Amino acid sequence: MRIIHITLFYFSLLSSYTSYATSVKDFCVADLQLPNTPSGYPCKSETNVTADDFVFSGFVPGNTIDPFNVRLTTAFVTSLPGLNGLGISAGRGDFGINGSVPMLTHPDATELVIVVKGQLTAGFITPTKVYLKTVKPGDIVVFPKGLLHFVVNSGVGNAIAFAFFSSSNPKTEILDYLLFGNDLSTSIIANTTLLDVSQIMKLKAQFGGSG
Amino acid sequence: MRIIHITLFYFSLLSSYTSYATSVKDFCVADLQLPNTPSGYPCKSETNVTADDFVFSGFVPGNTIDPFNVRLTTAFVTSLPGLNGLGISAGRGDFGINGSVPMLTHPDATELVIVVKGQLTAGFITPTKVYLKTVKPGDIVVFPKGLLHFVVNSGVGNAIAFAFFSSSNPKTEILDYLLFGNDLSTSIIANTTLLDVSQIMKLKAQFGGSG
Amino acid sequence: MRIIHITLFYFSLLSSYTSYATSVKDFCVADLQLPNTPSGYPCKSETNVTADDFVFSGFVPGNTIDPFNVRLTTAFVTSLPGLNGLGISAGRGDFGINGSVPMLTHPDATELVIVVKGQLTAGFITPTKVYLKTVKPGDIVVFPKGLLHFVVNSGVGNAIAFAFFSSSNPKTEILDYLLFGNDLSTSIIANTTLLDVSQIMKLKAQFGGSG
Amino acid sequence: MRIIHITLFYFSLLSSYTSYATSVKDFCVADLQLPNTPSGYPCKSETNVTADDFVFSGFVPGNTIDPFNVRLTTAFVTSLPGLNGLGISAGRGDFGINGSVPMLTHPDATELVIVVKGQLTAGFITPTKVYLKTVKPGDIVVFPKGLLHFVVNSGVGNAIAFAFFSSSNPKTEILDYLLFGNDLSTSIIANTTLLDVSQIMKLKAQFGGSG
Amino acid sequence: MRIIHITLFYFSLLSSYTSYATSVKDFCVADLQLPNTPSGYPCKSETNVTADDFVFSGFVPGNTIDPFNVRLTTAFVTSLPGLNGLGISAGRGDFGINGSVPMLTHPDATELVIVVKGQLTAGFITPTKVYLKTVKPGDIVVFPKGLLHFVVNSGVGNAIAFAFFSSSNPKTEILDYLLFGNDLSTSIIANTTLLDVSQIMKLKAQFGGSG
Amino acid sequence: MRIIHITLFYFSLLSSYTSYATSVKDFCVADLQLPNTPSGYPCKSETNVTADDFVFSGFVPGNTIDPFNVRLTTAFVTSLPGLNGLGISAGRGDFGINGSVPMLTHPDATELVIVVKGQLTAGFITPTKVYLKTVKPGDIVVFPKGLLHFVVNSGVGNAIAFAFFSSSNPKTEILDYLLFGNDLSTSIIANTTLLDVSQIMKLKAQFGGSG
Repeated sequence: MRIIHITLFYFSLLSSYTSYATSVKDFCVADLQLPNTPSGYPCKSETNVTADDFVFSGFVPGNTIDPFNVRLTTAFVTSLPGLNGLGISAGRGDFGINGSVPMLTHPDATELVIVVKGQLTAGFITPTKVYLKTVKPGDIVVFPKGLLHFVVNSGVGNAIAFAFFSSSNPKTEILDYLLFGNDLSTSIIANTTLLDVSQIMKLKAQFGGSG
Repeated sequence: MRIIHITLFYFSLLSSYTSYATSVKDFCVADLQLPNTPSGYPCKSETNVTADDFVFSGFVPGNTIDPFNVRLTTAFVTSLPGLNGLGISAGRGDFGINGSVPMLTHPDATELVIVVKGQLTAGFITPTKVYLKTVKPGDIVVFPKGLLHFVVNSGVGNAIAFAFFSSSNPKTEILDYLLFGNDLSTSIIANTTLLDVSQIMKLKAQFGGSG
Repeated sequence: MRIIHITLFYFSLLSSYTSYATSVKDFCVADLQLPNTPSGYPCKSETNVTADDFVFSGFVPGNTIDPFNVRLTTAFVTSLPGLNGLGISAGRGDFGINGSVPMLTHPDATELVIVVKGQLTAGFITPTKVYLKTVKPGDIVVFPKGLLHFVVNSGVGNAIAFAFFSSSNPKTEILDYLLFGNDLSTSIIANTTLLDVSQIMKLKAQFGGSG
Repeated sequence: MRIIHITLFYFSLLSSYTSYATSVKDFCVADLQLPNTPSGYPCKSETNVTADDFVFSGFVPGNTIDPFNVRLTTAFVTSLPGLNGLGISAGRGDFGINGSVPMLTHPDATELVIVVKGQLTAGFITPTKVYLKTVKPGDIVVFPKGLLHFVVNSGVGNAIAFAFFSSSNPKTEILDYLLFGNDLSTSIIANTTLLDVSQIMKLKAQFGGSG
Repeated sequence: MRIIHITLFYFSLLSSYTSYATSVKDFCVADLQLPNTPSGYPCKSETNVTADDFVFSGFVPGNTIDPFNVRLTTAFVTSLPGLNGLGISAGRGDFGINGSVPMLTHPDATELVIVVKGQLTAGFITPTKVYLKTVKPGDIVVFPKGLLHFVVNSGVGNAIAFAFFSSSNPKTEILDYLLFGNDLSTSIIANTTLLDVSQIMKLKAQFGGSG
Repeated sequence: MRIIHITLFYFSLLSSYTSYATSVKDFCVADLQLPNTPSGYPCKSETNVTADDFVFSGFVPGNTIDPFNVRLTTAFVTSLPGLNGLGISAGRGDFGINGSVPMLTHPDATELVIVVKGQLTAGFITPTKVYLKTVKPGDIVVFPKGLLHFVVNSGVGNAIAFAFFSSSNPKTEILDYLLFGNDLSTSIIANTTLLDVSQIMKLKAQFGGSG
């Protein structure tokens, strides 16, 4: 039984690829149905590529991340397949009053933030120093690759920022979700952060963690 | 007790660090006074780095490129030294009525265009096909690395777009300037493009070329 | 005694290797039947690889590109699968009298040209300067990655040159084909290059463009 | 006869080499007196390179990081200059009873941990899952690049582990030092982590933070 | 209140994720059943990944390579699939009296050797110089990428060393196996190395070569 | 005394770089007077760059390597500075009767060989197999990066080949020079290759080795 299915898969694979004999080289639009590789997704057949593969049409306010009063939208390779293998992608943050992008890292991407509306206080942290700046429309801020950073709405009204990443599919690691949103045991968290057990349990209740 | 030990550790750490004063590793802010290298500028000493090295404050309408009725601004490593070695940078285009970003390439950078205001028609060209799309605010367009592309204001009013590049210092090669803005001889241009000599001379007059 | 032990080792090595049949690591010959990825084609099973995968036997005069009186041959990964993932490939140009390699770019590859016969005038163009040289057998010319370049037969007879690229599958973007060989509209070309409409229509007729 | 010719060749080789005295290509030992670049330190002149540039002699227990009861030693490019540009380095951890390597990231390096003595519980965290394993001598654990991770001594005695990094100079970002060891304001920490102010102030006291 | 909103966000996040089931980005564990690519193996579906994919449990003495009286063990991507795409791997050598790691290269990986027990003499060779050092526990030696190297047990007893490589799947090219373990003709070996025919035939007998 | 010299150096450095305020980005021609870096040489000021930096004029028969009856010429970055950072270079071999390029590796470069005249037998070796081919003008052979290879003149007359490398400054490691041309001790060579002592001493005499 299994062998038959594999064979069928093999033939469908062959037939879908005989169409572009000389391959794709001006770009490599992601075929999101095939497994990813360390360098990105395999390429769609060029005959199936259209201008729409290079256009993203929802760069508008996204879902609210409520405890932080911010709405986030992302245009990564998984929703904009023309970005595949090209090392760039985009995001948008809409900040409510006192809203913030919580403490997070993008281990594999530098982030460039353009302020579009309002006033933001943005910072990143190294082992020896905090780099902090209050910025307004007309300002751009850089968060170097892999560094812990945050953005706080420090103005009186709402704020909007666009963000750009030096990766087609940047990892996004929000500290609170990592520490308090899964089943990592309270004792391990306590030992490796020195946070109080009561603090850990309070935030686990808020972010859905168990253990 | 603990604090004392931490302090001791802190000092021993500091003293071991002072032995290699120029060690910079969380980032490498460009020292623009030193010669560039294939991987980017040498790093400024970390003691001279401030938050301002990561902030660009002129992301506003730039100089007009007159025959094309567009104003361009760039935030590359040479004006935002915190981008050094990080593979990302930004630009902004303000389009007058019928303005356009002329036919050009960025050989070493993918470009991501966010429409901020108005309506634009953006396209890139491969040897076999043109990928063309009319886009509005809320849309993002990708120009894959190295491909010839253009952006035309196809709306009734002005338009604004932000652009992001997968390079800290993208090359920008505007076709008309390359062909008609220098001393490349008319006969070579004619031989290698089949443009008419009269056309070449007319555009040389417009773009300042001699020869 | 020693030989026996070696043999045993050899077999244990073999048996541990058979568990991952597809492990290829000394090279990665392209399996051109499978879809490409941003880093190159998936690897053929090593058991199917032969010396012929690393040999190309048609490095002889190729097809004529007629308006330019030049014949071009390429040995890229699609015809020399042993090049896969290795970042190098080759081409050959045979120039007729007054023949030329037309204005073009290889966005992802530096090109190295070796003059084999005759006299050529080769050049590349940056936004600020033209780098031009007349060269003969015994000379090598470099066209840095992504820059617009051309080669003209400036001698009295035929000429031959070999070219080498820092990519296994270099993109080749001939300016005339990009501008005049597809359905890009005449008005967009006119707006973004300032070429006259009559010139555009004349070259579209020559290179097969519509629109 | 042959030897004479070799000698002649040898001298002509030498004389052609002496024209570029600093040509180094078999390796690039760091000249730590010169400023770093995004690809690593400039190379020492090969005439000054000795075998000692490739040897590190202090891979023994290091300084105690007291609140966590672990001693850490590193062999990075700054103390082993032969690693320059080569993308690998080493560390060693000696764990006291209940000791731990605290929650941290290496944004630019995968880490490979070899257990040498005792029993360790090692884990890394993704936004959706914790990957946790208790390991003993003969085991190796991988922490993929950029992910938050930790190692806890879960055995009854001391423990020793060697660590290897896919970077010559890996960034080391210990969470507690980042959040509580500098002058980042308590209100920003509270807003972007939801930690209680009292918790923040307690840990700032412990790790030396102000603000 | 807050918790409810978080839950809603969590579900909308989940639902947007389910549309691209195979999206893996925090790591790319090798699916060893699929063909390798120049950047590594395709990624296993994240739902099938477990902590065991990041753990190797056989870092103990390996098979004897008898003529050289050394036992070698490797933890490469093919036995530790979590290493895929991450550029690091490990090996272990257990040296008998007078044992040695024979003359070899890893063309694509720097090697870092940690002495665990005994005394070793380790060296690498450049065209102009031999870099040689006798090392003991507490010492680390670097063999820069691609250089011919060796390790000899120069102490009185057994010795143990751990090795780390800047590649997930380093090529290992032992000189004797390359020259004398296959069907390369004796005359070609003689012509290209100047070894005597009798010497070649003697070593072919020992290493299993024919021709 | 020292400080004064450093200061002078510093000022001369400053004055030589103030001339190109916005840096070099279309290419990075090597400034061979400055120390190399892992990514290549620092860039010459663009104002000092001329077309000659991109042209090499000695691609003619080179010095004889006598025992092997072959003449070699190289066009690497040190003699063709426009190649800097571009990952490509060239060489030429002129083979006498029975001449050969001896057994060697280029650890960091794939090599592509074009046969120009005569008949060559070219091969490379993996741990499991020899890939061997006899080739003539019109043929191209690939030696994948880092693999041990050789080229033998197997025709009746002289032969010529051009070679291209996927590195601007490829390492060239000729086996005989590595083993027998320096002061590596005979006993280490014997232990790590199993070559007979008499063979080693004979070849040391031929290649100039001591020890």
